[in-house]
Amino acid sequence: MAIIVQKYGGTSVADAERIRNVARRIIRGYEQANQMVVVVSAMGNTTDDLLALARQITPAPDPRELDMLLSTGELVSCTLMAMALRSQGYDAISLSGSQAGIVTDATHGKARIASLDPSRIHQELDSDRIVIVAGFQGVTGEMDVTTLGRGGSDTTAVALAAALKASRCEIYTDVEGIFTADPRVVPGARKLDEIGYEEMLELASYGAKMHPRSIELGAVYNVPILVASSMSEATGTLIHGGASMEVRNKVRGVAYDRDVAKITVRGVPDRPGIAAHLFQPLADAGVSVDTIVQNASMERLTDLTFTVARRDVRQALEVVKPVASSIGATGVVSDDKLGKVSIVGTGMQNAPGYAARMFRTLHEAGINIEMITTSEIRITCIVAEERLQDAVRALHRAFELDQL
Amino acid sequence: MAIIVQKYGGTSVADAERIRNVARRIIRGYEQANQMVVVVSAMGNTTDDLLALARQITPAPDPRELDMLLSTGELVSCTLMAMALRSQGYDAISLSGSQAGIVTDATHGKARIASLDPSRIHQELDSDRIVIVAGFQGVTGEMDVTTLGRGGSDTTAVALAAALKASRCEIYTDVEGIFTADPRVVPGARKLDEIGYEEMLELASYGAKMHPRSIELGAVYNVPILVASSMSEATGTLIHGGASMEVRNKVRGVAYDRDVAKITVRGVPDRPGIAAHLFQPLADAGVSVDTIVQNASMERLTDLTFTVARRDVRQALEVVKPVASSIGATGVVSDDKLGKVSIVGTGMQNAPGYAARMFRTLHEAGINIEMITTSEIRITCIVAEERLQDAVRALHRAFELDQL
Repeated sequence: MAIIVQKYGGTSVADAERIRNVARRIIRGYEQANQMVVVVSAMGNTTDDLLALARQITPAPDPRELDMLLSTGELVSCTLMAMALRSQGYDAISLSGSQAGIVTDATHGKARIASLDPSRIHQELDSDRIVIVAGFQGVTGEMDVTTLGRGGSDTTAVALAAALKASRCEIYTDVEGIFTADPRVVPGARKLDEIGYEEMLELASYGAKMHPRSIELGAVYNVPILVASSMSEATGTLIHGGASMEVRNKVRGVAYDRDVAKITVRGVPDRPGIAAHLFQPLADAGVSVDTIVQNASMERLTDLTFTVARRDVRQALEVVKPVASSIGATGVVSDDKLGKVSIVGTGMQNAPGYAARMFRTLHEAGINIEMITTSEIRITCIVAEERLQDAVRALHRAFELDQL
Repeated sequence: MAIIVQKYGGTSVADAERIRNVARRIIRGYEQANQMVVVVSAMGNTTDDLLALARQITPAPDPRELDMLLSTGELVSCTLMAMALRSQGYDAISLSGSQAGIVTDATHGKARIASLDPSRIHQELDSDRIVIVAGFQGVTGEMDVTTLGRGGSDTTAVALAAALKASRCEIYTDVEGIFTADPRVVPGARKLDEIGYEEMLELASYGAKMHPRSIELGAVYNVPILVASSMSEATGTLIHGGASMEVRNKVRGVAYDRDVAKITVRGVPDRPGIAAHLFQPLADAGVSVDTIVQNASMERLTDLTFTVARRDVRQALEVVKPVASSIGATGVVSDDKLGKVSIVGTGMQNAPGYAARMFRTLHEAGINIEMITTSEIRITCIVAEERLQDAVRALHRAFELDQL
């Protein structure tokens, strides 16, 4: 019998009615002679509600305490799901992250899975039970509850699929799969039937809905991941690393992110070690730096620009300004009205025309490019936020993503 | 340094404001050079809300799943309490029942504590931390979450006090202590400064607010238990087994219970084994029988009467009627408009006048006695529910409980 791991997001289990609907989908999988392991997120806005509750007590809740608090959301939804299955006459059992054998490091709030002992799950499956696992959580070696960060239930599901050698991991959400662009921005956006891990990773990092760590994990353990809607019967998008990936030669999708601010340190003396001087204190302050651009200069003075999430701008400036003056930079400026737009596709890898076509498209649309970064399968431009939607639409059209 | 265990009920932690108030009380204890271990119940109506959520899914939730669901209520309140203490600058840590070392049997919904390993708590106390423990819950040897039944947080607190050899267990609630009678019924009811375990056990079983199992546990391990209000500074009632208990010679309080129904099986042949015939099927059906009265008769026919909670009357009748006719009884009748009133006090033990005075008092008030039962320190009369309040007041007056 094949093991299938399914994951249902918070919207899919937002109330009793939807929980019963999801139970019916699980039963369908079980009746097709599969062993079912199902990961659920917290119901609807539960996690936000619990966060708000903590903030009523203190503006800066202790990370360990917050993790134990937030973990209750998934305990509630997974017990209700087990009850729903039992009320339909199917034997089911809920397991907390700890009971499911998910051991993490002690980085509260964004813990990483250190090991996964699936023996309890195997034991329950062998007793012909449907196993419901609380997503998003694990436990340290000292039995302290941890959470895996926002979207961590995806990671739970893929990690379980890897540890259980499941034939597939199915991520059910409120969209029908992975699209060539955000359908709310580009009406002609098309659902992809399949996509490679690396491509999905770039799309997920840059706005499409899926937790990047779960895709990395899928790639490492080669777990096929189906992303589909819990509300419809549409086929969804299969993320895999199979052979059909190789033959394509196209941009696969356009991603965007509104949450971009840039900070420029002007007139930096171009000496070895300057970057470390600047970025180590930022890392120490917990500020996550995204894109970094530095141009070598003739006069041994250079501008160094980097982007951060908007909420981090103030803190980043507080850290950077004293460092900048200590290294003799001439000034620090920031702009938090930016966004980034990316084209993604393994097909671009050895084909030089894509970048040029992207820049030309944006130019023709009258959109100024502030910064450019590239990875092997992605080209990203930072642009003014007010032109971000136009940029996404123009690129979707230019790369013919609305056509099969 | 002395260890003090405190327990705060759901009303005391119903919102952020009250949680902060309780945090201040805990800090006061800590500042008086005590090691503090604090047990909290779920906030306000959380447990009822979670139950209602489960019932939206299924009318008969699986007990194991229900336990995991309900246990989240206490996890929420204990993490919030730890956050509140930390935000005041005091190091605190929340522990689930499992983390606190509370191992129970697997009787979901009313598990009994099998063992308690306090090593993690000692470790946290040794690090100068205030320890907040989720009440009402434990974990089986197989790591399945259990709950101890309604009011189980009292049991958690007393069990911890016993295991930690605490100098005292303080139960904070929304009343100022144990009264000679329910103050809502008897305006002249007086708060007791102290009371014995056995007396408290009878009062708790018969209406006063405290979980009977926690008092049993306190008696077995000789843990002094202070019951006091979390909202005021009044001294409360100390439940203990000390020497001052011995010298009293009085009724200590009047208890009552409205939730009484009686079932009478008429004309039962007075043969050995008849009682077992009748009560075994009731036990099998999960109906809890309280008082049983049977009068030996001259003609080898007798009436057998017993009481059950009102919600169980219909089920009890369904079970009893076929059995009654199979053993040749002449009929079965029931009355669910009853209540019971008790006088309680170790002082009554060797003093015969109390029962007579109780019956005379009720007679003079024109209240008919339907059934009588006694224990060593309690005399209980079953009366019509509509006369219950009058009975409580008359007895409170007759035994001079309003006077010091």
